Amino acid sequence: MVENRAPLRRPEDPVLDVNEAFYEALQSLDMNAMEEVWLHKEWVYCVHPGWQAISGWDRIRQSWESIFANTERLTIKLHQITLQICGQVAWLTCTEEITSGSADDTRVSLAHSTNIYMKAGDDWKLVHHHASPVPAYISPDETVQ
Amino acid sequence: MVENRAPLRRPEDPVLDVNEAFYEALQSLDMNAMEEVWLHKEWVYCVHPGWQAISGWDRIRQSWESIFANTERLTIKLHQITLQICGQVAWLTCTEEITSGSADDTRVSLAHSTNIYMKAGDDWKLVHHHASPVPAYISPDETVQ
Repeated sequence: MVENRAPLRRPEDPVLDVNEAFYEALQSLDMNAMEEVWLHKEWVYCVHPGWQAISGWDRIRQSWESIFANTERLTIKLHQITLQICGQVAWLTCTEEITSGSADDTRVSLAHSTNIYMKAGDDWKLVHHHASPVPAYISPDETVQ
Repeated sequence: MVENRAPLRRPEDPVLDVNEAFYEALQSLDMNAMEEVWLHKEWVYCVHPGWQAISGWDRIRQSWESIFANTERLTIKLHQITLQICGQVAWLTCTEEITSGSADDTRVSLAHSTNIYMKAGDDWKLVHHHASPVPAYISPDETVQ
């Protein structure tokens, strides 16, 4: 009799899960979920598209609060995800297709993102987010050569 | 009698050395030195400021060849370097102050850069370079909040 086992999880699955949680927190403008995703250290680092860089969790949290307070609606579709894992560190790249604004005024933009995750205890935590605008609008699936 | 020992090397020193070698290769438009810095794998990743992302060493090498062929002079001064090391992976951030052009036509721009290095044998190799323009000109020392 075959045991009823859970399907095997690949090593990359937990990183992909937390990356999904990051973008879910962002889309739902959910500060508690965003807190959960990040490592709360003074050296974590963030570049929002077109911003100065920000270092330290306190300042990064403030930046998300500011973004969430000034955003009515945000959807993000990810393209061309790549992921490398080496020991306790994982780095993921993707192209973000960002739709923002209201029903009457919708803007779509693309950004390249580098997200670095580090294993802290049993969890992978976001320690670095560098997102930068893709300058001209091109097909999202052609943003990586 | 005190022995004449070499000064102790910190764990971060070899990563800072290879980061310096990367920018030295870039400034001297030296393709051999650039080859030496990178890991030659199909999954290494590069975003030049304002470019599409590029994956794979062959394409990345071509991009540097193209940049070097079209650049007369390039100097890069680094500001606000941060470095984290975890096991065999290191990630370094900095602000690049890029001066390019000829004596008559000099342009200065700033870019945020995320450089990921991985230990391969005894050497640290560059596996990821994501550079993006800092949109408005601000003091290079104020690009990280």
